[in-house]
Amino acid sequence: MTARTGDDFSALGFLLAPRSVAIVGASDDPMRIGGRPIAAMKTAGFRGRIFPINPGRREVQGLPCFASVADLPEAPEVGIVAVAAKHAPETVAALGEKGCRAVTLFSAGFAETGAEGERAQDEILAIARRHGMRVLGPNTLGVFNAGIGYYGTFSSSLDSGYPRPGPVGIASQSGAYGVHLAVAARERGLGTSVLVTTGNEVDVTVADAIGWMAGSDAVEVICAYQEGFRDGARMVAALEAARAAGKPVILMKAGRSRLGAAAAASHTASLTGDDAVADAILAEHGAIRVRDTEQMLDFAYAARLRLYPAGNTLGVITISGGGGIVAADEAEAVGLPMPPMPAEAQERLKQLLPFGSPANPLDCTAQALNDLSLFDTYARSALAEGGYRSVLLFLTYVAGSPQLAPRLLDSLRRLRAEFPDRLLALCMIAGKDVVALYEEAGLLTFADPSRAVRALAAMGRVGDQLAAAPTRTPRPAVPPVTLPAGTPDEPTAKRLLAEAGIASAPERVVRSAEEAVAAAEALGFPVVLKIVSPDIVHKSDIGGVRLNLVGAEAVREAHDAILAAARRAAPEARLGGVLVARQLSGGVECLMGISRDPAFGPVAVFGLGGIFVEILADVAIRACPFDKAAARAMILSIRAAPILTGARGRAPVDLDALARMLSRLSHFAAGAGPRLRAVDLNPVMALPEGAYALDAVIEIDPEPAR
Amino acid sequence: MTARTGDDFSALGFLLAPRSVAIVGASDDPMRIGGRPIAAMKTAGFRGRIFPINPGRREVQGLPCFASVADLPEAPEVGIVAVAAKHAPETVAALGEKGCRAVTLFSAGFAETGAEGERAQDEILAIARRHGMRVLGPNTLGVFNAGIGYYGTFSSSLDSGYPRPGPVGIASQSGAYGVHLAVAARERGLGTSVLVTTGNEVDVTVADAIGWMAGSDAVEVICAYQEGFRDGARMVAALEAARAAGKPVILMKAGRSRLGAAAAASHTASLTGDDAVADAILAEHGAIRVRDTEQMLDFAYAARLRLYPAGNTLGVITISGGGGIVAADEAEAVGLPMPPMPAEAQERLKQLLPFGSPANPLDCTAQALNDLSLFDTYARSALAEGGYRSVLLFLTYVAGSPQLAPRLLDSLRRLRAEFPDRLLALCMIAGKDVVALYEEAGLLTFADPSRAVRALAAMGRVGDQLAAAPTRTPRPAVPPVTLPAGTPDEPTAKRLLAEAGIASAPERVVRSAEEAVAAAEALGFPVVLKIVSPDIVHKSDIGGVRLNLVGAEAVREAHDAILAAARRAAPEARLGGVLVARQLSGGVECLMGISRDPAFGPVAVFGLGGIFVEILADVAIRACPFDKAAARAMILSIRAAPILTGARGRAPVDLDALARMLSRLSHFAAGAGPRLRAVDLNPVMALPEGAYALDAVIEIDPEPAR
Repeated sequence: MTARTGDDFSALGFLLAPRSVAIVGASDDPMRIGGRPIAAMKTAGFRGRIFPINPGRREVQGLPCFASVADLPEAPEVGIVAVAAKHAPETVAALGEKGCRAVTLFSAGFAETGAEGERAQDEILAIARRHGMRVLGPNTLGVFNAGIGYYGTFSSSLDSGYPRPGPVGIASQSGAYGVHLAVAARERGLGTSVLVTTGNEVDVTVADAIGWMAGSDAVEVICAYQEGFRDGARMVAALEAARAAGKPVILMKAGRSRLGAAAAASHTASLTGDDAVADAILAEHGAIRVRDTEQMLDFAYAARLRLYPAGNTLGVITISGGGGIVAADEAEAVGLPMPPMPAEAQERLKQLLPFGSPANPLDCTAQALNDLSLFDTYARSALAEGGYRSVLLFLTYVAGSPQLAPRLLDSLRRLRAEFPDRLLALCMIAGKDVVALYEEAGLLTFADPSRAVRALAAMGRVGDQLAAAPTRTPRPAVPPVTLPAGTPDEPTAKRLLAEAGIASAPERVVRSAEEAVAAAEALGFPVVLKIVSPDIVHKSDIGGVRLNLVGAEAVREAHDAILAAARRAAPEARLGGVLVARQLSGGVECLMGISRDPAFGPVAVFGLGGIFVEILADVAIRACPFDKAAARAMILSIRAAPILTGARGRAPVDLDALARMLSRLSHFAAGAGPRLRAVDLNPVMALPEGAYALDAVIEIDPEPAR
Repeated sequence: MTARTGDDFSALGFLLAPRSVAIVGASDDPMRIGGRPIAAMKTAGFRGRIFPINPGRREVQGLPCFASVADLPEAPEVGIVAVAAKHAPETVAALGEKGCRAVTLFSAGFAETGAEGERAQDEILAIARRHGMRVLGPNTLGVFNAGIGYYGTFSSSLDSGYPRPGPVGIASQSGAYGVHLAVAARERGLGTSVLVTTGNEVDVTVADAIGWMAGSDAVEVICAYQEGFRDGARMVAALEAARAAGKPVILMKAGRSRLGAAAAASHTASLTGDDAVADAILAEHGAIRVRDTEQMLDFAYAARLRLYPAGNTLGVITISGGGGIVAADEAEAVGLPMPPMPAEAQERLKQLLPFGSPANPLDCTAQALNDLSLFDTYARSALAEGGYRSVLLFLTYVAGSPQLAPRLLDSLRRLRAEFPDRLLALCMIAGKDVVALYEEAGLLTFADPSRAVRALAAMGRVGDQLAAAPTRTPRPAVPPVTLPAGTPDEPTAKRLLAEAGIASAPERVVRSAEEAVAAAEALGFPVVLKIVSPDIVHKSDIGGVRLNLVGAEAVREAHDAILAAARRAAPEARLGGVLVARQLSGGVECLMGISRDPAFGPVAVFGLGGIFVEILADVAIRACPFDKAAARAMILSIRAAPILTGARGRAPVDLDALARMLSRLSHFAAGAGPRLRAVDLNPVMALPEGAYALDAVIEIDPEPAR
């Protein structure tokens, strides 16, 4: 069950930046679940009020302890519930009655254990709702907010050290994985200010945490780990809030594999949903999706400079051909352009260093180690004349050389000051102290040139996302569409679509062989005949479709054969006659469809028909509704798009008509509301002029009984 | 120019493990190019004899110095040439006359600077050849062999520390990148025993270095960086030598991008060749190709256990759902199977821990931290009952906990001893000292679970490669094929192929419209007509092809129209009549071809026709010749293979006939020798019974003048 209170994300402040906290089930033992938060807050110097609650103690870890929630001298802003699951409801109720604003439920044994546990957590939510409280968890490892020393968590990771405050905020559905991210970030020198682990997400979700961090001054870059989405709209709103705040959201969506999804379902009882749909929609709203933890941390590290170059380009300066080649390979693989240096600049650099290679990568050769001014000239030229938004300097172990480092640093500091808006990264290997000097000079450092290129490319993607007009959220209203009571037959489906401006091939429904012949002659040969029935979905399978019919005799024979086949195969089916349609050819067969994602609502799918979709999974997906420009971009984004635009001497298809049709379909789906289960236009014939649905299936849920 | 001496790789011993070395251009300054090797060998305690040569000095770095090579008291096994390019030839000649066995040419200014430099290095090679010397370089950073303290290199990386001997051997075309690899390996605690950088490769190549390391006791795993291949056969022989020695070769082939390839060409003047061809052939011979340095080092690190499980499977044991999901996602992405635990074992584990999830990933939950025996039971069950060849344990920061680490280590040591043939990896974050304890216990450690999975998957690929029957090298001899003097016309090409057992559609060549009609009637309608001419390659473009002809009149008209079109479009072309062929349909159109790779010789390509090849690049490639089983595997390896095997209700094609045809084509290409430039069978019609070439182009170089 998903729910929330309020329209914005600030309500999470009670959970994440409280001025007072009660710990129900407080323990004097700093290693126990009810003792750890108290110990941590004392160590970290939390300046809010801490109220331990335990009926058996007068004092806990040196703090006065209260026998019950009712005994508290004031309403705490947040209550941490560290009691067994069976006592959680009464505890939450007591906190609510006291006037508490939010609860963090460490307690486990809820939805993750089955249906009974799910009912129990829903009950808790209902109690909290009655008192206007937000709920984090249950089954959460908790949160921390390092800047104010608030540690509402029982993570044992603090035993090996506290997070250093820094630009990173982590929002994770998985507790252990969220903490793993924080510890891994610390290991690589990245400070984490805020960690939120959401557990079973009965109320507060990763989306809420992202939204709150978008408005938090302590967080510059948001790292999110998510297994499934329940409330797509909330996630979209959170992503747009982060975009509006100029903060990248780096997202690891786990459970993309069959096994991973199954494991995710077993451990949090969350729907992992269709990965491709989530991918498409999250990307539209600016999320930068990563494959693994390392990439997440690399990107978060690169974001420390807060330089996100839209229209990113890469210049590579190298003292070794190999380094340049490796970087160029990776840049091409991730789609980061490396335009060549201007011809005049190349000319000049070539005169300066005849064996150098000043195109891009710019190879100033090991000669630059003897004469550092060469390196400086190359780098300056790349920045000034090449104009690259990102520059990678391949220096490897040389940057650590005690002879060269001071002069290199000098040169780089000057470049940094002269070109403050460029991303400068070093590929270097050296001790931590030396690396720190370069980082303090405003440079990013990576040991591996390929990882450096991927991180620079990601900063460009962030820049493009921040520069893009935000997708309106909620999406613009569209005119409502009135649906029939249930799944319609093909002619009715096509009529519905025609009202939405979606054209089918010219066709008529006929009631006899003679009518069929007359219709065929009026439409023009060749024609297709199909059985009409709301009860027969797979018409071909039962012999209910005949293609390529030329001449009256063929049409007459086909008409009777189709009817006979339908009566034989589905004696109970309601038959609505036979559909005669002009058979279109000479175009490209496409597929358009609508499906309803449980988290994100209606989404449109576009691809070429047949094997392109079924074997190569070459499709584009987008949340409905969207305009023609977006539809066009979708169509052109599939790998097989060249087939539509005139590859191999074909005539290009009417992209304009195709995009209009796809956009109209998306409006139809958005206007139709939740009873629309699916639309399948397969094939759509895209011709050099016009595009026509040759078949249409609309699946509709029956109207709810009143 | 490529060349080599001798049949095996042992001749490199003089370059890599010499008993005496002369340095021509020796310097007293340990920071100069002619001083660095001497300083390094003294520091590292090289036990061979070192002969500095410099006419201006009596002593160099405390060693007696000689005025010239001729003055040496004995022939050194290797001569290091650290003089300007223009003095290199005379120096090499002097070393040869003295009886030296190999030279390392630090000198730059050769092929990398243009045609003149290329001539100069060829001249040096010729001199070396006359004296039976092998040549490393020119333009090489040199080599080291840490175990014996031999440092024939001027790399400044030694300023920041010497390599620690260890299992890694590095062979790199790029000097700086090779050293970068060695330094990066050292940073992550991996010892490098041997480094060879090959520079311009006038003689010794990366392949030679791989081959030598295959026979070296000091090297267990070979890391290779290569930009282009000149002598494919040598690389294949080296890879097979490594396979025979049971050593993985982890290969980074750079220059795969357009820009990277251009940069590679500019900096070493080497042909980077067709990346897809190299990929296919290297994989066949067991190379494990990696995308970046980090992956190379991860795989080299994982190889330290020398466990390469053929038929690898993965079991994941986790204390956090998230860790298991992330691992499962990555396993699916890299194709590492994660079969479920046996049902009985799941049953038992479920009873032990009701909220655990004992399928695979096996989630023993954070409860295992309170009761480590749970963890031990889960792990033991995964190894014994699950039988996984690789097991990943997701422990994250918990493994570093001072309370838990000693007991965890105990448990893992016991498992290690009981299951010595399994790969055990930990996902953990802790200080270096703690990590070292786990490593000493025989476990691999990774901070990132995704990287861990990739490394485990790679060890399985190594295992499969080592277990595979080695591809015979050199390839088996095939009967020679006699080629015509030049590129033949289509009927001649088909006749040649028919002699090799490759069937075309039934066809006849005719000289008149009447003959065409008679042929068509004999073959059966519909038919295709095509102009026959060795001078017209693109027949369709000039109106020289007519398809789908039914009836005598259509054939007569088409015959005359084709001849007229050909005479109009190409009045000078030799015309050989008109080809009448039975038009086959109802199958799948494929493409088979042969091209000649400059490094690897004739390679066969298979794919579906049209867009599958042109837009999706969905092809399989293999060096010729190969047998029917290999051909079948190729065919089934393309992404679109389901189209051939009966997807979407199609009849499956005759895979047997198709594979036989592809194998026969590969034998034809191998037997035809280097004059065969290309073969293009496009389309090949694969029918439910039989497969036929519908068109055939064979391009042949003219016979050399005598």
